[in-house]
Amino acid sequence: MKQSLFLLGFLLTFQLYSQSDAETIKTIYNTSLSNGQSYQWLDHLSNQIGSRLSGSLGAERAVQYTREELDKLGLDKVWLQPVMVPKWVRGNPEFAYIETEPGKTISVNICALGGSVATAPQGIKANVIEVQSLEELEILGREKLEGKIVFFNRPMDETQINTFNAYGGCVDQRGSGAKEATKYGAVGVIVRSMNLRLDDFPHTGGTNYGDTPINQRIPAAAISTNHAELLSSLLKLDTNVKLYFKQNCQQLEDVQSYNVIGEITGSEFPKEIIVVGGHLDSWDLGDGSHDDGAGCTQSMDVVRLLKESGIRPKRTIRVVMFMNEENGMRGGNEYAKVAKQNGEKHIFALESDSGGFTPRGFSFDSSDASFNQILSWKSLFEPYLIHYFERGGSGADIGPLKDGTVVLAGLRPDSQRYFDYHHAANDTFDAINKRELELGAATMTSLVYLVDKYGFNNINTKIQIKD
Amino acid sequence: MKQSLFLLGFLLTFQLYSQSDAETIKTIYNTSLSNGQSYQWLDHLSNQIGSRLSGSLGAERAVQYTREELDKLGLDKVWLQPVMVPKWVRGNPEFAYIETEPGKTISVNICALGGSVATAPQGIKANVIEVQSLEELEILGREKLEGKIVFFNRPMDETQINTFNAYGGCVDQRGSGAKEATKYGAVGVIVRSMNLRLDDFPHTGGTNYGDTPINQRIPAAAISTNHAELLSSLLKLDTNVKLYFKQNCQQLEDVQSYNVIGEITGSEFPKEIIVVGGHLDSWDLGDGSHDDGAGCTQSMDVVRLLKESGIRPKRTIRVVMFMNEENGMRGGNEYAKVAKQNGEKHIFALESDSGGFTPRGFSFDSSDASFNQILSWKSLFEPYLIHYFERGGSGADIGPLKDGTVVLAGLRPDSQRYFDYHHAANDTFDAINKRELELGAATMTSLVYLVDKYGFNNINTKIQIKD
Repeated sequence: MKQSLFLLGFLLTFQLYSQSDAETIKTIYNTSLSNGQSYQWLDHLSNQIGSRLSGSLGAERAVQYTREELDKLGLDKVWLQPVMVPKWVRGNPEFAYIETEPGKTISVNICALGGSVATAPQGIKANVIEVQSLEELEILGREKLEGKIVFFNRPMDETQINTFNAYGGCVDQRGSGAKEATKYGAVGVIVRSMNLRLDDFPHTGGTNYGDTPINQRIPAAAISTNHAELLSSLLKLDTNVKLYFKQNCQQLEDVQSYNVIGEITGSEFPKEIIVVGGHLDSWDLGDGSHDDGAGCTQSMDVVRLLKESGIRPKRTIRVVMFMNEENGMRGGNEYAKVAKQNGEKHIFALESDSGGFTPRGFSFDSSDASFNQILSWKSLFEPYLIHYFERGGSGADIGPLKDGTVVLAGLRPDSQRYFDYHHAANDTFDAINKRELELGAATMTSLVYLVDKYGFNNINTKIQIKD
Repeated sequence: MKQSLFLLGFLLTFQLYSQSDAETIKTIYNTSLSNGQSYQWLDHLSNQIGSRLSGSLGAERAVQYTREELDKLGLDKVWLQPVMVPKWVRGNPEFAYIETEPGKTISVNICALGGSVATAPQGIKANVIEVQSLEELEILGREKLEGKIVFFNRPMDETQINTFNAYGGCVDQRGSGAKEATKYGAVGVIVRSMNLRLDDFPHTGGTNYGDTPINQRIPAAAISTNHAELLSSLLKLDTNVKLYFKQNCQQLEDVQSYNVIGEITGSEFPKEIIVVGGHLDSWDLGDGSHDDGAGCTQSMDVVRLLKESGIRPKRTIRVVMFMNEENGMRGGNEYAKVAKQNGEKHIFALESDSGGFTPRGFSFDSSDASFNQILSWKSLFEPYLIHYFERGGSGADIGPLKDGTVVLAGLRPDSQRYFDYHHAANDTFDAINKRELELGAATMTSLVYLVDKYGFNNINTKIQIKD
């Protein structure tokens, strides 16, 4: 019995798409590659607007621009969803040098971590203790760390094939280094940039002081990988080497901002909502082309490509550009809160926030039944060299929608180059390849098309219930 | 019976690798990513030597350099295989402009096609006829074409997912445009660059006059895609627009050059030869980093990575850097000729000549039996996101080895960016990502490891014979 049910499930699963789906998907890819809009939109967002840190003028202009562009698409509804966001500003550029002996200095490239406090106006100069992990702090203790600058220098694991795993294995140093080092009387923190490549760009990103009182917080900065290597080498030659750094950042009052939302209202099941999105804010050093201008303009093109391909969705398709993913997650949280308040039923949410590189597939956070249904569509994507369909995380902004029924997914592009640019001054439009971006938009649109057409019918679950 | 044979075949196929293979392949990838040499070698080849057109000083220095580097690897044998190669030189840079009316000109970016003749010393100025195909020439006939410059402007098909298919659908204009246009009295040929992107780089590449007598050959150049668009637009406004171009290239006498070869002699089956290679020559405009410095240094790293990973091959593994793929194929032909003369038995040849981008898999030119055996290894590659195992072409240089028994294969990297750089001045080292290159080297090494360990046993064939 179990076997025949398995077979039934298999057959039902197998029939979950038709030949016309293959043709529709071909149309979607052709349209994106020959008449896509994601690249032109991203050009404007990156080159005309630039960086979009929450609360900045750039973020404000990006809200206005993307809203206007959505307005032009003839959607059923376009609106701004208010959300208060933190406003952290970098101030004047940071400055740092290594002092090998009095009067003998070497300039190094640093940038304040997002959320960090400033140094004193005259900067900080102190001896440096290099560590490889947060755990090492406890071993060294206050005796070794008091009055010192802690230098977190554990590199990303270059043998990881998925570079996001290498990032995940390293980013605790940036996220919690300052908070932990404070406990032992350190006066500052320097973190090796989250970058697999050796180069001269410092990479920012959020640091979190937790409940450390404001007057006890110590300044934290990232140092370029080349200069992390240099500092480490010099410390090996002479433990008395000092580091000086000065940064001028500050946390201001929260300001008003917005999630930007557009929707095509479903023709048959308007109350079943499918979300596709990215985050509109970026860090302030580059122009946020890969993180996450790419995801925003791909998401905008999803609703446009559906229309261009002559698809009239049964369900409501919503493009959401979330505000404040980078340093607060206020937009994602607000969207989910409002959705809950309004009793909205989200069946699927897809985020693109891993760069605008050649798409390789998706990862899914879903029930077994829904995942199996999605797997039945996999062969439809093979002509486009989309092979990766795995369980896993989705996206930070859509995470708050998780309620045990909604299917969450993340676009998974090739990850090899992502951390060359992530949160650094070189995350700029010239690092975007038009076709790669457009293939991502087409891949997202194709999946949204299938989910809209078939919904999630939980066949496996139903069979189990019958049994 | 057929079913059980199918099952038997399936089981035998299924067992064609062991758990230890997965571990060995993990070691190979880890070694390439953490201690690879392909990137450093390519840095030297690109930045210290530069372009390597057959017969050039660069090609000569590349032969010397790669031979010296192979010598350092402790292989069993390293040698140069002499081969005479054509020597075509560009001379002074080309110059071209569009003349919209007398005295009113716009400079445009062109480059002579490889093998083209020069213009007259004073250049050529003539009216332009835009065509989309070779076939159109016959329709237009001598009446319309005599004394004109023929402008081939059919763009690459952007809807092709594999950009090499788009190239294949277009390159007849470059390869045969001049030869065909000569027949109708045209005085010159301008070809839209083989580039999916709109930019300012003209892309060279070989043109072939066939048996057109030398004194009847007409000069042929490529124009950048941006300027192809411009020229086409201006011609739509005014068919009387003229083009001027001047180029100074010439074909000199053949010169001595070499294929560079190194081998690890097999410990059990030394007479069974596995070749891995790329081509050492490049076009002259960039430094040939993607085409095909990448393939050469990846191939060099295959033999090195085998050694570094503690693998002692049973069969003879030969790295071959072929000379003159771009404008003569002399190296590939010579290698196959000498192999035949010496009665060598090649069982497998793998070429990397599609750029140093993230590897996606391989295409195979082989018997069904060998292909099925290779497919049984596919799951070993999945942890490295290598999914593409298809029948198809291999590589130009190894093509001449084809004899009905040898298995030929080509590495298939992501193709989206390849034609942004192909044969153009921007095919330079900065367009190479270290990890992507190293993943390619590891992927090649892993396949060579498996072929070396198991050989090709043609199980399916044997089963069919038993039946």
